[in-house]
Amino acid sequence: MAVAVQLLPLLLLVASALAGYTPRYTPDWDSLDARPLPAWFDEAKFGVFVHWGVYSVPAWGEWFWYYWKDRKDPDAEAFMRNNYPPGFSYADFGPQFQAKFYDPKKWAEIFEAAGARYVVLTSKHHEGYTNWPSPTSWNWNSMDVGPHRDLVGELGPHLREKNIHFGLYHSLLEWFHPFYLLDKQNNFTTQNFVAAKVLPELVDLVNRYKPDLIWSDGEWEAPDTYWNSTEFLAWLYNDSPVKDKIVVNDRWGIDTGCKHGGYLNCKDKYKPKTVPERKWEMCTTLDKMSWGYREVMNNSDILTYVEIISDLVDVVSLGGNYLLNIGPTKDGVIIPIFQERLLSVGRWLSINGEGIYASKPWRVQMEHTTSRLWFTTKQSAVYVFFADWPMSGVLQLTSPVPTNMTTVMMLGIPELLKWSEDSLDRSLLIYLPKLSPDLADMKIWTLKLKGVE
Amino acid sequence: MAVAVQLLPLLLLVASALAGYTPRYTPDWDSLDARPLPAWFDEAKFGVFVHWGVYSVPAWGEWFWYYWKDRKDPDAEAFMRNNYPPGFSYADFGPQFQAKFYDPKKWAEIFEAAGARYVVLTSKHHEGYTNWPSPTSWNWNSMDVGPHRDLVGELGPHLREKNIHFGLYHSLLEWFHPFYLLDKQNNFTTQNFVAAKVLPELVDLVNRYKPDLIWSDGEWEAPDTYWNSTEFLAWLYNDSPVKDKIVVNDRWGIDTGCKHGGYLNCKDKYKPKTVPERKWEMCTTLDKMSWGYREVMNNSDILTYVEIISDLVDVVSLGGNYLLNIGPTKDGVIIPIFQERLLSVGRWLSINGEGIYASKPWRVQMEHTTSRLWFTTKQSAVYVFFADWPMSGVLQLTSPVPTNMTTVMMLGIPELLKWSEDSLDRSLLIYLPKLSPDLADMKIWTLKLKGVE
Amino acid sequence: MAVAVQLLPLLLLVASALAGYTPRYTPDWDSLDARPLPAWFDEAKFGVFVHWGVYSVPAWGEWFWYYWKDRKDPDAEAFMRNNYPPGFSYADFGPQFQAKFYDPKKWAEIFEAAGARYVVLTSKHHEGYTNWPSPTSWNWNSMDVGPHRDLVGELGPHLREKNIHFGLYHSLLEWFHPFYLLDKQNNFTTQNFVAAKVLPELVDLVNRYKPDLIWSDGEWEAPDTYWNSTEFLAWLYNDSPVKDKIVVNDRWGIDTGCKHGGYLNCKDKYKPKTVPERKWEMCTTLDKMSWGYREVMNNSDILTYVEIISDLVDVVSLGGNYLLNIGPTKDGVIIPIFQERLLSVGRWLSINGEGIYASKPWRVQMEHTTSRLWFTTKQSAVYVFFADWPMSGVLQLTSPVPTNMTTVMMLGIPELLKWSEDSLDRSLLIYLPKLSPDLADMKIWTLKLKGVE
Amino acid sequence: MAVAVQLLPLLLLVASALAGYTPRYTPDWDSLDARPLPAWFDEAKFGVFVHWGVYSVPAWGEWFWYYWKDRKDPDAEAFMRNNYPPGFSYADFGPQFQAKFYDPKKWAEIFEAAGARYVVLTSKHHEGYTNWPSPTSWNWNSMDVGPHRDLVGELGPHLREKNIHFGLYHSLLEWFHPFYLLDKQNNFTTQNFVAAKVLPELVDLVNRYKPDLIWSDGEWEAPDTYWNSTEFLAWLYNDSPVKDKIVVNDRWGIDTGCKHGGYLNCKDKYKPKTVPERKWEMCTTLDKMSWGYREVMNNSDILTYVEIISDLVDVVSLGGNYLLNIGPTKDGVIIPIFQERLLSVGRWLSINGEGIYASKPWRVQMEHTTSRLWFTTKQSAVYVFFADWPMSGVLQLTSPVPTNMTTVMMLGIPELLKWSEDSLDRSLLIYLPKLSPDLADMKIWTLKLKGVE
Repeated sequence: MAVAVQLLPLLLLVASALAGYTPRYTPDWDSLDARPLPAWFDEAKFGVFVHWGVYSVPAWGEWFWYYWKDRKDPDAEAFMRNNYPPGFSYADFGPQFQAKFYDPKKWAEIFEAAGARYVVLTSKHHEGYTNWPSPTSWNWNSMDVGPHRDLVGELGPHLREKNIHFGLYHSLLEWFHPFYLLDKQNNFTTQNFVAAKVLPELVDLVNRYKPDLIWSDGEWEAPDTYWNSTEFLAWLYNDSPVKDKIVVNDRWGIDTGCKHGGYLNCKDKYKPKTVPERKWEMCTTLDKMSWGYREVMNNSDILTYVEIISDLVDVVSLGGNYLLNIGPTKDGVIIPIFQERLLSVGRWLSINGEGIYASKPWRVQMEHTTSRLWFTTKQSAVYVFFADWPMSGVLQLTSPVPTNMTTVMMLGIPELLKWSEDSLDRSLLIYLPKLSPDLADMKIWTLKLKGVE
Repeated sequence: MAVAVQLLPLLLLVASALAGYTPRYTPDWDSLDARPLPAWFDEAKFGVFVHWGVYSVPAWGEWFWYYWKDRKDPDAEAFMRNNYPPGFSYADFGPQFQAKFYDPKKWAEIFEAAGARYVVLTSKHHEGYTNWPSPTSWNWNSMDVGPHRDLVGELGPHLREKNIHFGLYHSLLEWFHPFYLLDKQNNFTTQNFVAAKVLPELVDLVNRYKPDLIWSDGEWEAPDTYWNSTEFLAWLYNDSPVKDKIVVNDRWGIDTGCKHGGYLNCKDKYKPKTVPERKWEMCTTLDKMSWGYREVMNNSDILTYVEIISDLVDVVSLGGNYLLNIGPTKDGVIIPIFQERLLSVGRWLSINGEGIYASKPWRVQMEHTTSRLWFTTKQSAVYVFFADWPMSGVLQLTSPVPTNMTTVMMLGIPELLKWSEDSLDRSLLIYLPKLSPDLADMKIWTLKLKGVE
Repeated sequence: MAVAVQLLPLLLLVASALAGYTPRYTPDWDSLDARPLPAWFDEAKFGVFVHWGVYSVPAWGEWFWYYWKDRKDPDAEAFMRNNYPPGFSYADFGPQFQAKFYDPKKWAEIFEAAGARYVVLTSKHHEGYTNWPSPTSWNWNSMDVGPHRDLVGELGPHLREKNIHFGLYHSLLEWFHPFYLLDKQNNFTTQNFVAAKVLPELVDLVNRYKPDLIWSDGEWEAPDTYWNSTEFLAWLYNDSPVKDKIVVNDRWGIDTGCKHGGYLNCKDKYKPKTVPERKWEMCTTLDKMSWGYREVMNNSDILTYVEIISDLVDVVSLGGNYLLNIGPTKDGVIIPIFQERLLSVGRWLSINGEGIYASKPWRVQMEHTTSRLWFTTKQSAVYVFFADWPMSGVLQLTSPVPTNMTTVMMLGIPELLKWSEDSLDRSLLIYLPKLSPDLADMKIWTLKLKGVE
Repeated sequence: MAVAVQLLPLLLLVASALAGYTPRYTPDWDSLDARPLPAWFDEAKFGVFVHWGVYSVPAWGEWFWYYWKDRKDPDAEAFMRNNYPPGFSYADFGPQFQAKFYDPKKWAEIFEAAGARYVVLTSKHHEGYTNWPSPTSWNWNSMDVGPHRDLVGELGPHLREKNIHFGLYHSLLEWFHPFYLLDKQNNFTTQNFVAAKVLPELVDLVNRYKPDLIWSDGEWEAPDTYWNSTEFLAWLYNDSPVKDKIVVNDRWGIDTGCKHGGYLNCKDKYKPKTVPERKWEMCTTLDKMSWGYREVMNNSDILTYVEIISDLVDVVSLGGNYLLNIGPTKDGVIIPIFQERLLSVGRWLSINGEGIYASKPWRVQMEHTTSRLWFTTKQSAVYVFFADWPMSGVLQLTSPVPTNMTTVMMLGIPELLKWSEDSLDRSLLIYLPKLSPDLADMKIWTLKLKGVE
C-alpha cells in the first residue's frame, strides 16, 4: 500500500475555480510574470531580514544541521562532541529555543529607527521548524516546542503600527523531512511533501498573517512543477486576501531564479552591474559568516557602517532594494552590535533618505573616476552620493549637465552650494561646505541637484 | 483555499484492487467479523502489555497531558508549577525521554521468564509520539527526539527469538493533533487526520514490523467510518504481509467495542461473567493507578501475586486471555517490583501452565461454594484451580462426575492423589497432599482430572 | 605562608574545661570504652539505614565518584561518556538532586510499619555533600544546591513522633576534599581537614539535631589521633546535649574497628559466630549491590524476605542489632520493592517481635541439626525461632530442658501447644499446629517457652 | 562548643618572622602607605577590567544574587519566577557557567590590540565562587563546577607573553558565606571567615599566579583589622614572591578607601577634580548598567568611543590610570560590541599613545574655554589633547608659553605645524592641518609641543 499523497495539489485549481470568476492570472509564468509589482516595494528600498529559529540555539550558523548531519563537517561534529552527550539530536535543541526576551514592540522600534520600510522574518527555514503554530508541523513549531509563542503572529501588528511592511521568508525544502526525502528519492515524481507541508503552510501563512511579501527560498533542488509554484502564485494573485499588495521574489524552482516570479534576488548577496529590466533586491547579512546568530562572532566578521551605506547606495542607484539581515539570539535579543549598525543606517537615512526612498535610477548610475559617485533621481531632482570627500573641497561631476536653472544642495545643510562649470571639459564643479568632524561622520554624502539634464 | 486532505483513504481500496485478485474480505463488518481468529492467540492465554512513551518522563500516568491541558486537573497543574519553569510544554519533555538503559534482549528474557506468549508494546499512545521513526510523525518520534532509537523495531526480533508473539498497541486518536482537532470540530465529516496520520502509520507499522497483533485504541470519539477501519482491516486481512497471522481487537470506532473486529476487549479491565461467544481478552495493569510509569508509586498500589493469579485463572476459565501491563521508566528500566510480579507469574505458570496454555473453557467455569474453584479443559483432561486449601485436606468438587477411569493429580507433584465420591451428594472428594510451606507458596493450586465427565 | 589550620582541635578541650566541672570521661579509649551503652539501643534490635545523597543522581552506587575518578573504573567511565557531555563533573550533578517528592512524614510511617526502632540517615557520605545546611560545606549541601531543603532536619521530628530513634551516619573522610588530600599527603601529620570540616560538622550535627546515634564511617585511612576522635567523644559523652542517650559505633580511626567506641560494627555486613562481649550491630542493604539507589536494579539483586528475617533472627540471637539499608531515589522516593520488603519485616515483627525487641541472647544461640533454629530470651521466657517446618508436625529441640512448669506457645496463635520429652535423648518435642497457607506465609516461626531451663 | 576559628591570622606574623630577617614594612598603615608604588603601574595608564563568574549565567548584572535574595528586588524575583522552576537556587546556576569558548590566547590578543598595559580579572566576586581551583572553595570554584578549568591560571601566561601586566580582582566579603554572616552577626569581633577563606585565598592567589596587581574590593562592611589587611600587606610587600612588583589598591577596610593601601580607587567610576597626591585609578565599565555580562543589553547602554577616549585623556591628565571593564558571556565570549570598543581604543592609542603611556600630569591639566583641552607631559614634551576641532582651523592655547625653540606636531602627521603667538593675549595659536574624513575619525587629537614652558 502506498503512503503517498499525490492528488492534493489539484485542489488548488479547484479552489480557484470555485471562486466563481475568471482569474486574471493563469498558473503559468507568462501570465504570472506579467503582473505589475505593487508599488510599495520599489519605494521601500531598505528592509531588514531576520533569521531566527532552532539554529539560534547551537548558534553556529543557520545551516548547522546540514553541515553536521549531511556534510559531516568536522567542526560541526566536534562542536557537538565537545558540548553535548552522545546521541543528542537536532530536535533535542528545540526546548532550548526559548525567546525569553522576545519583545516584538522593541524590535519594531529598532527597525523603525533603522529606517527600514519592510521586514522579512523567517517563518520557516530549511530545518522545517515553523515560527508559528502550523498545524502541519505539529510539535515542531514555536508554540509547541521552545518559546510557546507565535513568533510570526506577534511581530506583524507591531510592524504595521509603524507602517513597516511585513514579509515572511519561507523555505520550500526541508533538508530532513521524511516526505521531502522520499520525493527526492523518487526524482520529484511524487509530491507527498508539497501536498502535506509546503502548500498547506504557504496558504496558512497567507491566510493568517496576510503578509505583504513572501520571500521564497529552498527551491533549488526541484522544478517549479514539483512545488506547484505557478498554481500557488495564481491563487495568491487572484484569490488570496493579499492579492493586491503581495510581493514575491524569484525562488520558485530550479530554473526560476533571476527569471520568474515577482522581483529578482538571483543569488544571495547578488548585485548586478547594470540596471536590470525587472525590479530586484540584494539581500546580505551583517555577520558576514552567517545569517543565523553565531555565538562566537568577532567584530571583524561584521559589516562596517561604510560597507553597509556603500552597498545601500550602490544597490539603490541600480534600481534595487537592500535587505540587510540580522540573527537574534535564541532568547530573542538583538545584540548591541546589530542594534548599533541598524541605528547608524537609520541616522544616515534620516538625512539622506530623501535621495533613497521612492527614488528611481537616473540615466547614469555611477561615476568612478577619482572618487566613488552614485546617482538616483526623484521627481525633478538628481541625487548624487559621494564617498570620497575631495581634499580640494571641490567635487567634480561629469554626468549631470548644468543649466541656468541648476541649484545644488547638500542634504542636511540648509544653504545652496556654489557650483560652476569647468571651462575645459564642461564638467560640473561643486564647492562643498567646509568639512567639520560632524559632517565627516556621514562618510557618504548626498547632493541634491535640480535643473540639471 | 482548503487545507484539507480528503481523498486519500480511497487509495486503500485502489491498492487492494491493484493486488489483482478478488479479496476474501470486503470492507464491512459482516465480512470482517467472520474471519476466524488465528489459533495462536487463543492458545497464548497470557501476554504482557507495555506502556512507554513521553509520558514516562513526567511519570504521572500516561494521561498526564490530557489531565494537565484539557481537564486542567489541579494536581497535574500543581505538579508542573512546582517543578518546571512557566510555559514548559509537553513537547519539551521529549528530549528527556532517553531510554538510556533500554535493553530489549533483557526485556525479552523477563517476558519469557514471566511465561508470556505475547507482548503488546505501545507504538503510539494518545500523545501521538511514535516509538518508531514514523515519517508522518517527524520530530515527534523516538528516533528524532529523545531516545534516538527505534524502540519498536529493536524489541521485535528479541521477542521472536523466544517465540513470543509481537503485538503493537496503536491509538487512533491523538488528543492534541491539529488535524484531529480540526476533524473533530467538523464533526468528523472531514478526514484530514486519518489520511495524514492514522492510515499511513498503521500501514507503516504493519509493513515494517509485521506484528502478530494490533491492539487498537483511542477509537471512542468517532465512528469507524471516520477511521476507515473496515478498509484498513480488509487490506490487513487480504493483502498485508501479516494477513495469515494477524490478530486485532475490537476498538475501531464508537460502536465497535464488544461487537466488531477480532477479539473483544470491551472496556479496560473488563471481565465477563460467562463465556462470551467470541474470543476476548482482559487487559489490566500492575500499577492499579496507571498504565504508564509513575514515579510516586506505593507498594499498596500494585496488584498482589494472588490478585494476579486469581485474575489469570478466572479469565482463562472464561475463555479469555490475560494481558498484564507494566510501565517502564523513561530510561527503559523495568523496576524490580514489576520484575518480581512478572517472574512470580512465570514461576506459577512453569508448574500450572499445563492447565492454562491452549486450554478451553470447560462446561462449568467455576464453583464458588466454600472455596474458590475454576475449571479449564484440554484434550481429555479437566483442570481444577483452587485458591482455598481446605483445612481438612479434602477438597470437595460438585461439578466433575467421576468414572471408574478417573485419576487425579496435582500439577507439580508426581504421585496420583486419592479421591472418593461423597456418599451423600455424589460430589468428588479429593485427598490433597500434606501442605508444606513450599506447596503453600503456590497460593492457587491445579488439579488435573482425567476420566471425569 | 602556611594555609594550615592546626590549632583548632584544642578548642574542644578548652570548651570542655569551660563547662566548669570534672568530666566523667577522659579523651582516651580506656575511659571512653568503659561508658555503658544507653539501654535503648540494645532493646531496639531493628533499624533502617538510609543512604541518600548526590550519588542518588547518577544512581550507580554511592561510591560512584570514587570509581569514576580515582579507580577510573571502565564501567563508570563509560557511563559518563555515554550519557553526559565531556568534562561534566561530579559537582555538576548537584542541582539534579532534587528530592521533589521527599515526604519525611511518609518515610516515618513506612519505617514505623517496618517495625524499625531506629533510623540512621546519611548526613554526609564520602562525597562530602551534607544533607543539612552545614556552614562549613557552603554550596555543597542540600539547602544551597539541589533540594533546597534541610533533609536531615525535616526527618527527625517525624521519627520522634513515632518513637523511632534518630541516628546520623557521618563519614569522617571526604575522598576529594582538598584539605583531606593535603593532610593525607602529609601522612596525616596536619589536621587542616579535621579542624575545618570534621569537628565543626560533627558538633553542628549534635547541637542542631540532637541525634540518638552517630554512625561513624570513613575512618580507615587515618589514626584516631588524626580525627581527634577521643576528644570529640569525651565532649559528646560529658558535655553535649545528647550525653545521656547518645550511642556511637566503632569507626573512629584505623585501628578502632571492632575494638573501641560504642557498639561494634566491625566490617560492613559483618556477623560474628558467637556472642561478642560488646554490643554489636550488623548493617546490610536490601540491594545487595549497593547502599545508594541504583537505577538499573534487578529483582534478583534484592534480599528476599526469608533472607532478611533469617538474618534478623540470627543477629538478634547473637545479641546484635540488625540495620537494614535502603537507598531512596534522587527525588526522595522509596521505591515499591523496598517498601514491600520493609513492610514484610513489619508484618513479621508485629507477630514475632515479642521475641526480638528487648530480648537477650540465651545460653544457646542456635541449633542447626535437621532444621535451622535460634533462641533468645526475655524475662522468664525462651523464644525459639525456626525456619523449617517439620513435615511430621513435630519440632524437636535439644537445648531447652523442660520442667513440669513448661508451657509452649506459638506467637500469633492463642492456644498452648502440646509438648513431650523424647524418651531416648530427652529432647523436647513440640507438636505444632496444623500448617495452613496463612501460617506458612510466616516462613520463620516463633515459639515461646516458659518454664524451661 | 564553639565552631569558631579565631587564632589563625596570627600565623601570618609567625610566617613573616620565620623568614628570618627584619621586614622592611610593618603591619600598620604608616609603614605600608610609605611604600613607593612600583613604576610599571603609573606608566601603564590603560588597563582592561574583566568581570566574569557565575553571575554571567543569569546575565542580569553581577549583583544579581544580592538583589534577588537580599533586597528581594521585584525585577530579579520576576526574572527567576518567569524562567526557572520554584526553588531554583543561585548555586544551581553553577553547572551552566561553562566557558565553552573561553580562549585566553584570543583574549590576550584583543587586550593587546586595545593597547591595554594591564588586565584585571575577577578571581572571585562577592558571590564567593572562585575562578581558580581554590582548596578553600571546594565545589564552588571553576574547576569543580561549571567550566572545569582554571580560568585565572590559563589567562596569566598569555598576558605575559604580550607584556601585559596581570592583575587579580578579589572580593574580601562574600554576601552569603555562612562564616561571613556569622562574623557579621558578631559585629566582626570574630574572624572565622577571614581565617578560613580570605587569607588562605589571597595567599594562594599570590603564590600560584604571582599577580602584578591585587584589586581588592568588598571591604566596606568591616574594619581593616577584621580583614587583617595590614598583616597581609606586610607579608605581601616583605616576603611574598611578588614583593617587588606587586601593586594594590585602597579597599582594605571600612575607612581605607581614598586613604590607605597602594593606589587610590576611592569609589567606583570616581574621578578627582585635581591631581591627587597619590597615584589613582578610575575604573569604569563599557556597559553603563553592569560590570558582569547582561543578556538584555541595548546599544544605548554602552559607552561611546568618544566617551571612552575623553575619559581616558581626562584621567591621564590628572595622573590617573583608566581601567575599562568588560563582562564576557558565560561561555567566555567577548561580544562584538565590546571587541569593537576595545579595538577602537587601541587604534587611537596606536597613534596618540605617545602622549599617554608613561606620561605625567603637566603643570596645567586642562583648559575648558571654547574647546575641551587636556595636557600631559613626558620628557621635554608637552602633549595637548583636544576634542573640538576649531572651524577656523586654528587652535588657541592659553597655558603653554612658547619660546623660540618651540615646535608643534600633531601625532600621526609627519610635518611640523605652523604656530604663532597671539598679539593680544599672548596665547599660542596653532595652525591645524586641513581636516580630512580620516583625520576627523580620531575625534580627539594630540599635539606634541616641544620647547614650551
